[in-house]
Amino acid sequence: MKRYLSTISREEAQKLILESTRRISEEEFVSVSDASGRILSRPVYAFISNPSHLLSAMDGYAVESEKTQNADLANPISLEKFTDAIPVSTGTPLPEGKDAVIMVEEVEEDENYIRIRRPANLWQNVRMVGEDTIEGDLLLPGHHRITPYDIGLLLSSGITHVHVLRKPKLVIIPTGKELIDPYEESEKIGKRGYVLDFNSYVLSSLAEELGFDVKKTEIARSEREVEELLQKFIADADAFIINAGTSAGTEDFTEKVVRKMGELFFHGISMMPGKPFLFGKVANKPIFGIPGYPVSAIFCFREFVVPFYHALVGTDLKKEFLSVRVAYKIPSKMGVEELIRVSLVERDEKIYAIPLPRGASLISSVSYSDGIIRVPRNKEGFDEDEEVLCELIRERSFIKNRISMVGSHDMSLSLLRQMVKDVNAKMDLVTVQTGSLGGILALKKGVTHLATTHILDPDEKIYNLPILKKYLAQQKWRLIHIAKRIIGIAVKKGNPKSIRKIEDIANPGVKFVNRQHGSGTRILFDLLLVEKGIERCRIDGYEREEPSHTRVGIMIKESVADCGITIYSVAKLFDLDFIPLAEEDFDLVVSESFVEDEKFRILYGIITSDEFRKKLESFGGYNTSETGRIKYVNG
Amino acid sequence: MKRYLSTISREEAQKLILESTRRISEEEFVSVSDASGRILSRPVYAFISNPSHLLSAMDGYAVESEKTQNADLANPISLEKFTDAIPVSTGTPLPEGKDAVIMVEEVEEDENYIRIRRPANLWQNVRMVGEDTIEGDLLLPGHHRITPYDIGLLLSSGITHVHVLRKPKLVIIPTGKELIDPYEESEKIGKRGYVLDFNSYVLSSLAEELGFDVKKTEIARSEREVEELLQKFIADADAFIINAGTSAGTEDFTEKVVRKMGELFFHGISMMPGKPFLFGKVANKPIFGIPGYPVSAIFCFREFVVPFYHALVGTDLKKEFLSVRVAYKIPSKMGVEELIRVSLVERDEKIYAIPLPRGASLISSVSYSDGIIRVPRNKEGFDEDEEVLCELIRERSFIKNRISMVGSHDMSLSLLRQMVKDVNAKMDLVTVQTGSLGGILALKKGVTHLATTHILDPDEKIYNLPILKKYLAQQKWRLIHIAKRIIGIAVKKGNPKSIRKIEDIANPGVKFVNRQHGSGTRILFDLLLVEKGIERCRIDGYEREEPSHTRVGIMIKESVADCGITIYSVAKLFDLDFIPLAEEDFDLVVSESFVEDEKFRILYGIITSDEFRKKLESFGGYNTSETGRIKYVNG
Repeated sequence: MKRYLSTISREEAQKLILESTRRISEEEFVSVSDASGRILSRPVYAFISNPSHLLSAMDGYAVESEKTQNADLANPISLEKFTDAIPVSTGTPLPEGKDAVIMVEEVEEDENYIRIRRPANLWQNVRMVGEDTIEGDLLLPGHHRITPYDIGLLLSSGITHVHVLRKPKLVIIPTGKELIDPYEESEKIGKRGYVLDFNSYVLSSLAEELGFDVKKTEIARSEREVEELLQKFIADADAFIINAGTSAGTEDFTEKVVRKMGELFFHGISMMPGKPFLFGKVANKPIFGIPGYPVSAIFCFREFVVPFYHALVGTDLKKEFLSVRVAYKIPSKMGVEELIRVSLVERDEKIYAIPLPRGASLISSVSYSDGIIRVPRNKEGFDEDEEVLCELIRERSFIKNRISMVGSHDMSLSLLRQMVKDVNAKMDLVTVQTGSLGGILALKKGVTHLATTHILDPDEKIYNLPILKKYLAQQKWRLIHIAKRIIGIAVKKGNPKSIRKIEDIANPGVKFVNRQHGSGTRILFDLLLVEKGIERCRIDGYEREEPSHTRVGIMIKESVADCGITIYSVAKLFDLDFIPLAEEDFDLVVSESFVEDEKFRILYGIITSDEFRKKLESFGGYNTSETGRIKYVNG
Repeated sequence: MKRYLSTISREEAQKLILESTRRISEEEFVSVSDASGRILSRPVYAFISNPSHLLSAMDGYAVESEKTQNADLANPISLEKFTDAIPVSTGTPLPEGKDAVIMVEEVEEDENYIRIRRPANLWQNVRMVGEDTIEGDLLLPGHHRITPYDIGLLLSSGITHVHVLRKPKLVIIPTGKELIDPYEESEKIGKRGYVLDFNSYVLSSLAEELGFDVKKTEIARSEREVEELLQKFIADADAFIINAGTSAGTEDFTEKVVRKMGELFFHGISMMPGKPFLFGKVANKPIFGIPGYPVSAIFCFREFVVPFYHALVGTDLKKEFLSVRVAYKIPSKMGVEELIRVSLVERDEKIYAIPLPRGASLISSVSYSDGIIRVPRNKEGFDEDEEVLCELIRERSFIKNRISMVGSHDMSLSLLRQMVKDVNAKMDLVTVQTGSLGGILALKKGVTHLATTHILDPDEKIYNLPILKKYLAQQKWRLIHIAKRIIGIAVKKGNPKSIRKIEDIANPGVKFVNRQHGSGTRILFDLLLVEKGIERCRIDGYEREEPSHTRVGIMIKESVADCGITIYSVAKLFDLDFIPLAEEDFDLVVSESFVEDEKFRILYGIITSDEFRKKLESFGGYNTSETGRIKYVNG
């Protein structure tokens, strides 16, 4: 184990960082019109009252109320225009010496006089000075964050510029020998031997959204370059992020520089992802040494840089939590706090958290997650159905507008997702690839709206219905046909290992890539092996499982394997050769309680549309002649 | 009544606007690094897999696993360096032909060979191609709003640019003959006869925050100028806001232009504030005719332009609601939906909504409000203690961190507010000026944490305690002394009406400005009138009530009145002459349940600080010798 894997907890680390943080006080004088979201560094007092003068509140005549006191119905009083009765409109200043306005509708008039039959009350129809704010009023206290409404308050009181805290400056240094910038060296994207720097773009965007003034430097490819960049920006920066290029090896590099130029506070925390995080100071400027794996980088930013920002400017950290149920048991190591990314599914008034893949390298798992569940250091994970607090990453409304689909993978799923969004941009179709059996079990547990499946029954030789009747006997559901599709053996273009039939997969020198247990494809493959009398142990790679058709496709394309069982459309996508084995039914199981849901109505409308059929057929290997047919209704 | 006061409801108006809105489809091709918050106009598929090559997951040697199969503890196998065993580090691409990595810790080595005593498994310590995403994967569907995390997902899959919806373009035309721009004609700010345009800045800021590309035009001072501006921008804009400069008169002006150049859909809605709102189309571009009073302008923007924006780009309107209790009866007219601004106070686990002043001209009432309560068209307001839904304008956390103070007005309150924020920027002290008695009653009802008071008992001749014992007999509270302050008669500089004593206020030709019923100042004044035998009806202006000392001050300064009763510090602030009448006790009443609150601890620390005393004394007319003394504890 590396030395930096110390035992300092996340809480201790946060405390150490915040204790060494002082609120910034330097200010900027900015135009109020650009100040929304900025934080006042001083109290602001009204420069003028609003309104700043007495104004007429009506169209009519401004008069001296005393001169009208004797008017009554029988004895009208005449007032000379432009001297005793000055015409005014709504919003114009009240002429000097006048103290009331008579509405134009209430006077009789000729060219030179108005006649009134009622006295005017003092200040009637007059808008008072300072009705809204009074000169010298405290409009907004220092440390207040300016809203768009405050812009009106300030301008209306004669304040056009205000003193605000300057934005704290964060310098982000991406480091790594093989790292390339996706914009400056775009020709190297996807080429062997280069690693794309995307972390620094994610961190910059997060930091800017938060309120930092962000400077992203060029990539530092050596210890010396990191030193030089620190030196270059140290006077100007409020803090640095040094982000490792790739993996653990690189962080020691940051530690060395921090130790050499300043002081290391700690290296290593008992939080996962994020273990190798370090913090120190150089010339009294905080240095956040953020690990290279993208999930670790994001989580360290959220846990340490975000509270640091709020401490710098004195604002409030805001987090939204939701009480959720854990859909599947989450095991976790004692002694380490683990942050689990989860996808949330709302069904029958309950919200289930589906744990997403945990790898620290999987940026997709953050991008696709709805929230984070924390497994405390002193707990060995969460049990199935345990109720826990989930910290939201997405807005609550996203979860409401979502269709959850668990089970088998197919090319139709991305297509359906896009078509759902085209109909209603607020909705989304979220798919989790567990294989067919996983989908059926999720539906049984009630943690998904829909399941996708293609499981052949060995005895009846029909798809899906037998196993559904067995597993979902007690529930109400219906089975809807999506398409027939051709499944077979995919091999590298040109078929270099000469694979013609299922038996050839067991030939010496042939590397196979398998699908996971419980997937329809695996069930089919195992049936074929039994039928042909092929022993599993003879297949090189039988134990290597991949969770989707496209992952099997890419493994063959990239020569990790010579062959695998997948659908025709995937072979076509990756330009592989293909030996057909069977035509199977890819079907959708819908819980009856969801059938009435507006979201399902939209989805079913899409499934039965000509457009969907046409697009699906264009992938190749699909037969949509019965697409949308309700094959069975249970219960 | 004006013709435009039609009976179309807010809901009908919203429906008409949304029915005539089509989602925009034009796109822009932008850099992923700048795309956070933008909305994808097309689905995005991975360009490369991530990782795009097999990578070593460890520091060690890349080997062919087959060549290691016979290794065991007793019979190690030797592999030649740089041919059979190629040195690799974490993250470097796996050399061609190799399919496993042996960790450096597990080999014995010399200059040319490594020796191993265990076979390597196929693909051990190798990061697979496409572990995160696979080329061709649907990364994000069209209509998805890009997050900072998505930036990582996209870049890591080789996507550097994406197609996004262009931002809808909103053109805001401020109109009004007397309107001036606070930046272009800053020398006219506060001068007679000019009206500051701040609405267009508030609306611009709100619209930009929402996601519009905003163009604010110069001020249109005539019908022709509005026409010219519409013509100039019509080809380019997705919608217009025409914002009247001041009052009702101006809107007809917009109606005329819309009728002349296009089609008027409606003018006038049964919603308050916001009645004169109009909507139409010119050359098929929506025109929002937004009233000039700032509160009406903001509410019409929130009710009509915000949903319009979401319909244009297909995103979700988000509103946060909170269940609250109405602190005071809210009367409202039948037939009109009224939007009441409220301040929220959290006490003893309940949240009370205190209605704020309702005038449509009061921008401060929006800036200082926490939320909006809607009185439906068919309801005559809300009763005291009725439970209603409040639409939040501020974040929930603001309300939690707030001290509520109701009652008498004093110069110390702004000072305390700023000092509280200096200690803890997340806190705030919110004061409502109801006069002393209003504060005591609010404390009795439990809708405030603190009350401020200065009420003289006519018999005992002492301040505050007698009335508190009477009104708050059943409750637990303590009375804390803030300061003694001098109260008296304020008159215009030079005392032109020669006012020397209380009796002079009744002199002919003297205009008085009074304080509201229930204020300590009013109670004192009424006692003095009785003492001196002065009849109220002899005082010109006795009925004119103002709710604070500063409002009395500004009325005298602006010659609305000749004299009024106020405190010395206010007379000094407005440069008025002053005739002292009494020294009174300005005190704070604290509910005992709040005494233990951390927020009160901070406030009390400030009240008893030297800094507070010094600053308060510098206002003039304060005696702080006993500031902070606990005068009485009840219950």
